[in-house]
Formats: sequence, structure tokens, C-alpha cells
Amino acid sequence: MNSANLQLDDNGSLKHFLTIDGLKREHLVSILDVAESFLNVSDRSVKKVPALRGKVVANLFFENSTRTRTTFELAAKRLSADVLNLNISVSATAKGETLLDTLRNLEAMHVDMFVIRHADSGAAHFIAQHARPGVSVINAGDGRHAHPTQAMLDVFTIRQMKGDFTPLKVAIIGDILHSRVARSQILALNTLGVSEVRVIAPKTLLPHDARESLGVHVFHDLEEGITDADVVIMLRLQKERMDGALLASEQEYFQRFGVTQARMKLASPDAIVMHPGPLNRGVEIESEVADGPQSVILEQVSNGIAIRMAVMAMAMNPRALGGESA
Amino acid sequence: MNSANLQLDDNGSLKHFLTIDGLKREHLVSILDVAESFLNVSDRSVKKVPALRGKVVANLFFENSTRTRTTFELAAKRLSADVLNLNISVSATAKGETLLDTLRNLEAMHVDMFVIRHADSGAAHFIAQHARPGVSVINAGDGRHAHPTQAMLDVFTIRQMKGDFTPLKVAIIGDILHSRVARSQILALNTLGVSEVRVIAPKTLLPHDARESLGVHVFHDLEEGITDADVVIMLRLQKERMDGALLASEQEYFQRFGVTQARMKLASPDAIVMHPGPLNRGVEIESEVADGPQSVILEQVSNGIAIRMAVMAMAMNPRALGGESA
Amino acid sequence: MNSANLQLDDNGSLKHFLTIDGLKREHLVSILDVAESFLNVSDRSVKKVPALRGKVVANLFFENSTRTRTTFELAAKRLSADVLNLNISVSATAKGETLLDTLRNLEAMHVDMFVIRHADSGAAHFIAQHARPGVSVINAGDGRHAHPTQAMLDVFTIRQMKGDFTPLKVAIIGDILHSRVARSQILALNTLGVSEVRVIAPKTLLPHDARESLGVHVFHDLEEGITDADVVIMLRLQKERMDGALLASEQEYFQRFGVTQARMKLASPDAIVMHPGPLNRGVEIESEVADGPQSVILEQVSNGIAIRMAVMAMAMNPRALGGESA
Repeated sequence: MNSANLQLDDNGSLKHFLTIDGLKREHLVSILDVAESFLNVSDRSVKKVPALRGKVVANLFFENSTRTRTTFELAAKRLSADVLNLNISVSATAKGETLLDTLRNLEAMHVDMFVIRHADSGAAHFIAQHARPGVSVINAGDGRHAHPTQAMLDVFTIRQMKGDFTPLKVAIIGDILHSRVARSQILALNTLGVSEVRVIAPKTLLPHDARESLGVHVFHDLEEGITDADVVIMLRLQKERMDGALLASEQEYFQRFGVTQARMKLASPDAIVMHPGPLNRGVEIESEVADGPQSVILEQVSNGIAIRMAVMAMAMNPRALGGESA
Repeated sequence: MNSANLQLDDNGSLKHFLTIDGLKREHLVSILDVAESFLNVSDRSVKKVPALRGKVVANLFFENSTRTRTTFELAAKRLSADVLNLNISVSATAKGETLLDTLRNLEAMHVDMFVIRHADSGAAHFIAQHARPGVSVINAGDGRHAHPTQAMLDVFTIRQMKGDFTPLKVAIIGDILHSRVARSQILALNTLGVSEVRVIAPKTLLPHDARESLGVHVFHDLEEGITDADVVIMLRLQKERMDGALLASEQEYFQRFGVTQARMKLASPDAIVMHPGPLNRGVEIESEVADGPQSVILEQVSNGIAIRMAVMAMAMNPRALGGESA
Repeated sequence: MNSANLQLDDNGSLKHFLTIDGLKREHLVSILDVAESFLNVSDRSVKKVPALRGKVVANLFFENSTRTRTTFELAAKRLSADVLNLNISVSATAKGETLLDTLRNLEAMHVDMFVIRHADSGAAHFIAQHARPGVSVINAGDGRHAHPTQAMLDVFTIRQMKGDFTPLKVAIIGDILHSRVARSQILALNTLGVSEVRVIAPKTLLPHDARESLGVHVFHDLEEGITDADVVIMLRLQKERMDGALLASEQEYFQRFGVTQARMKLASPDAIVMHPGPLNRGVEIESEVADGPQSVILEQVSNGIAIRMAVMAMAMNPRALGGESA
């Protein structure tokens, strides 16, 4: 699938938001700038903006996710949209309706935007490919493929804390192989021109050709990889992947790849600590680090609202906002 | 149960909407006319109307249905109502509360309108019978009894496409015996004075006395029944009914009763194709027909919002809208 | 836990609402008075008030409860708040996130108020203890500990019907031992200065030292305890407690502790009958009593909206409303 072309209109403006792949530095900066302009709405110094007044946003969550669904819902409401929450797993498809029929039916109800989360890689792309002109699709996580709004809120938080991307060494720790979050983060960080993206993981949780395919530096030793890092990002360990990792237990994972206060001493003194949540305390991260002064984990959550507002507003108003890129 | 009297007030205006049974041609035309006046709100050329401002509509869905619940929710919001979605199967009645206690409690919370879907025939009637004056009840499907808003959106779509009902031959194909949709459609079509209603089904999926009790022409052969039809309506095959139909498989059903492009050639050249959804592609309908130029299946979905707006607005404002009938 | 201090600010105004324990008569009267001023909004003579405009209220229901959740939702909307309904049991905590992480995440999304229902005694207290300044917590029922908004709507209904608390004899019948409702009612009634609180239950459903610890008169015989009572409150019998009660069956419970018309004749002639719902008809109460002229059970439901509006408005605006107590 080539989502890059699909998600931009003829003027190079955002129409859908499916993946970081194929977007240019200017596109990402434009999203970050619009999100920044929405911070005062996301924190409610300003109550609402009318960008999506009269529009209907449907949250199509085929996988459950309180945090992501809730921030999309809050973001849509701050933009004055009407929101439909559809828990699809228990409804239409239970009757055997195809994904395409679900799309067509919701379009017939005049839904303007679909926020979709699905266990299949490519689901959001498929919906965007078949959506009518004027309808926008936002990928809220598809299989192992992409989770682009998560990546954007991460780089937004990094810019907020660090200002300039170019000097930064960023270390991402955990199950790179199966993580849509990591895939989108790496694309965003490289596009924004950070100095170095490092991935730290056991061999079993990395693609063979990670260095070439992802454009990263590969480490199998946490202490080596974390040294001098400016940004330390943990991934959530999916317990069902433990076997594949050839690790005996969560304790062993923590011993080898858990981020502790002691290990953080190896990173840059003003390094920041990030995690997409929910946390497995004592598995990939020590509570002292999660709740410590270097952690910006809750800032990530807050910034999620502004980023999602930005992406939704830009997709529905391609001409009005951002996008003189290309 | 005699819902006919229950659903009209002393002036012959709509108070509840429980069944087509007992309503006169004028009532149905009045609903269609009001729905037509709401088309510009349902498609959002006009954003909202204040007809139900300050009113609380409770969606009581004891059976799951994304499409129906969502269109009722959208319709209520376009009328400026506040909407409560109550998934009753997992809440109050799980604690053993009676249906009547649920009604009384929601009335005590000042709910003004109940949209009810229930597996028991007569559930909406029962609620209407016991509701306090001023409270309206809309039947969103009860057992095998009735699904009157579905029937009204169907005849609305027919009028939109065909103009006049009187010359039309309408063929309804599938499990007539168990279908609340068919029952309501037949009543609406006959009341509106179509030339002929035909039902096409195996004997096992028809009442014995279909001809007399329903006022229809009965066909057991699809090709015979579809000939010269102006409107071809399929019903959804409930897989659990397959046994009762004495059919070996979905393949056999499709072979005998599936609507294909070839068979559609027997119908009137400008015949329209309808289905209440969700579709069983390759069972009761071929994809080429479902997605072809004669299909108005998605128009039915769109029209569902306008029809539900009409019925809700009329029931809450019996004097303001329609109803000089009787 | 000492929730008393936690729930008041330095001026003695309400900041959280966790328990009746530690609140003074003036606090309770102030809540009742504010609720009374909201009656015209709760019944929609006035449509909305702006007290919580721009605020986000999260309903965190770890236990299911249609009635309580719905009245909190309606109350919050009448105060112009935005409401998030989070069914936590099926989401974040299913991924192993701690209660504290859930709190921190929702705070990061700028949620202003948490309405929490949880199976663990102390859950609301715990959340309030860790919430950021400016965030309010309302206890919607925690384990066997407290259900203070239920108790307040009960005493509100009593005041509405009886005017003055001081001469009243109030009898509470049922499983006192496990009931958070009873615990909160007894505290509220004693704080408001009723003449006498009686509890009527089998020994197995009472604390050993009920008389001293709760400040009540104890009866094991319904007919004795109900005599001359001005207010008769039943509790819902949890079927899973039946064994502990050493009762063979619901029939035996009804025979010994069910409130019937005959037994009501022993109470004061103008006694009122109350029940927090949902009813077990034929177990703790006879239908003739539940639906009879002395029953104010549905008034309790209606009053629940005004009480919840009052508590939410006071907690978010401690200076504006009530609280010259201390």
C-alpha cells in the first residue's frame, strides 16, 4: 500500500492521516505548529473552537483503547464536532457485515471523518482508499503497521522539551519488531532530522535488517545503547510476546531491558523519559523513573489532545491550515 | 394488543409510533411529508432544528443494532434533544429489575421519549401502555412483530424514486414468516395503495394463510415473482432459520432465492433494489446487484435519519406537525 | 482513612464528596438547600445552568449501575459539563494499569471531576488523596463503605415529605452489615438530628456492636421495629448474601422481613416508604407497597438528579455555594 499519495491532496495538503511514511519534514512541522496553536484549547484556557462545527466524527474502535479513544473524543469535541462512538467488535461485524459495508453505511449517515483502530495492518488505508471525496480517515493504530498520531504527540513533546531536533540522540527500547508505535516514531524522528535513532532490544524482538530497513543504530545491550541519549523512549511489553523474546520471565526482561534510575545515569543528564502507556511498572520501567523528574509521560498524554485536534482540523480543512509544503 | 388506538391522540395525531397497523393513508403521507421537510437537516445543509430542544430521548436497546441505534441517535441530536444510550442487557435487568420498573425509573429521571428495541413482540406496546402522559414511545423493532420506522424509510425511498405508489408492483423476497420488517412493509405498502405486493419465499418461510392474512400475492419461484416488479426488496436471511427453511445450505438458498443480475433482467427495466441491511452478500443478494445502478440500499440508510426525525418530532409535538387526518 | 478533612477546604467548604462521616449538620443542610434550588433544572422547567460550563466530568464506573451513572450523567449535563463515560472494567485496567495511573492519565487530559464507583472500600478516598489541586472526586459507591449521594437524596426526599427531621423515627430494614447505603443513611440521619434511627435485620446481617458503633436502635423483629415509624426504608437484598443470613430462601426472607401492606399498618399512618432500587419485588417489598400511595421510591430517583447537581456544583465552586459552616 502506498498511503503517502493517498493522504495528500493535489496541493500537498493533508486529506487523511494514515502513516508518517511519505510525509515530508514540512508536513510534520506544520502538524506540530497547528497543534501548538491548539494548546490553549486542549487545556481549556479557550473552551472550544468551531473548526469542525456541524461535522460528525465516528470513532471506529475494533480494538479497545480507553486512552486513545478518549483523547480523540475530547479533541473532536473541542473542535465542536459531534462524536459517534462505535464499538464495532460487538455490533455490525458480529452480524457478518464487511468493513466496506460498515464504511458505506456510515457515509450514508453523513459521517465526515473516521477515526479507526483495527488489529489488521492496512485497515485505515483500506478505508481511506474507498472513502468518498470529502470524507477523512485518521489512523488510530492498525495492526503492526502504524500509529501516526502517537508518533506525532511524541515528537511534539520532544520539541516542547528540547526545542531543536537536529542534535538529539533518541533511544527506543523494547519490542521493535511488533510495535506500530516504534515504526511511526522512527519515521517521524528521521524525517525531522534527529542526529541518531537507536533501537535497543533482544534480537528476537527486532527485524533482521533493522539498521537498513528502519535507518537506526541497533543495540542489544541497554547500558550501551542508553549512553548519552537525550531522549529515552520505552515501549510497552506485550506479555504475549514474552515467549518470542526467549526470555524466561518479566523479571528477566526487567533485569536486561528495564529502565532504572541507575541506568538513567548513563544517559545525558537532561535526558527525558517517554512511554506511550499503559505502563508495566517493574517490567519495562521502574516506578522511580516513571514518576521521576525526567519523565514526560503525562505531558505526552496532554499533548495527545492538541495533536489530534491538529490532525483532524487539517484533514477537514486542507486549505485553511498548514500544507504549503511539497 | 391494539396499538392503533394507543398511538394516536384524540385529534388523530401521532403520540407513539409502535406499528403501521391501524394507521391511515393520511398518517403515513404526513410522516413522509415531514421527513421530506427534514432532508436538509438530515444531510446537514441545515445543522440542527430545535424541535426537541431540552427533551431527553433514551435509546433502550435490549438487542444490539449499530445502524438503527446510530440513526436514531443522529436524528435525535439533529432535533437538538439530549440522548441517553442505555445498553439494558448488561445493566438494570441483569439485576432482575422488571421492564416496568426500568420505565418508571427513567420517567422519574424526566426522560421524554423512549426508543425501544426488544426481542419480545409487544415490548414497545407494553411500554406505551404504561407510560405517563406526555411520554412518547417509538418502536425500533420488537420480536417478530413490527419495525415501523424501517418500513417508513423504505416507502419514503420508494416515493423518492418512483413518485406515485399506485402503479407499483413490489416484490419482497425472503423469510416473510419471521420478519418484523416484512410485516411492517406490507402494511405500509398496502395502506399507501400500491398496485400489488408480492411475497417470494419457500413455503416454510411463509405463514400458511399469507395471501389472506397479509393481503399479498404469494410466489414460491423467484423468477416468476420478480417478473415486471418495479421494486425488489430482499430480506436478510437469519442463518439460524436455515434449518426451518429445509434448505441444505446458503448456497442452495442463493441458487433458489438469491437476487442476481440475470434475474433482475426479468423485473421492470427501471426497477429499484432494496435491502434493510446488513447484507449477506452471496446469500440473498449478489454483490453486483447490491452495488449496481438499480440499488438504493444506501439511500435507505440516509433516509432513515429523516424518517426518524419526523416520527420523533411528530410524537413530541402532535399539534405542531401533521395529523389533520382521521 | 480520614475522609472528613480531605473533603473540605480551609474554609470548610466541600471540595470532594466521599462520605457523610465528619460532615456537620450545616454541610448537609447546605447540600439540601442547593439541591432544592436546582429542582427546577432537574425537572427541566429551566433547561440548563452554566455552573460547570467548560468542565469535563469523567464517570469512572468499575461496577455497573444504570441508575446511578445515568443520573450523574444527566446532572452533569444540566450543569453544562462535558461528560466522559468510561467503563473501566473492560479497558485500561484490563491491560494492568493501576488505578493511580488511570487517574494521572485522565488528569493529564484535563478532566476536572471524577465520579467513581468501585468494588473496593476506600477507592474514592484513595483517588481524592492523590488528585491534583482543583480536581474534585465524588464517591458514587465504594465497596461496603459509603454511598453518600444516595444517602443525601434519601434525606432530601424525607425533608421534602416531612419538613422537619427532629421528630422522625426512621426504620431501615435489611442487610445492614454489607450495605454502604445503610451506613451513609444512618450517618446522615443522625447528623440531621432525627429522633430515632432503627435498624431491623437478622443478627447475621448486622454488625455485633451496631447499637454503639452506628448509634441506632436494633430490632430483629420487623413488626416490633416498624411500629410508629415515620419513615420505612428497605435495602436491596443481595442474593449472594442469602447464605450468610442463615435463611433458607427468598420466601423465608419475605416472610420475616418483607414489607407488606399489613405490616405497614403498624407504622405511623402517614409513614413514607423508601427503597434505593432496583427492587426485588416479593423479597424485601410487596408490590402493593412499592406502588402504593405511601411509596416515594420514584421521588427518590427524581431527587437524585438535583442532589447530584448540588454536590457537583458545590465541589467545583466551593466559594460560590454553601459552606459558611465550620
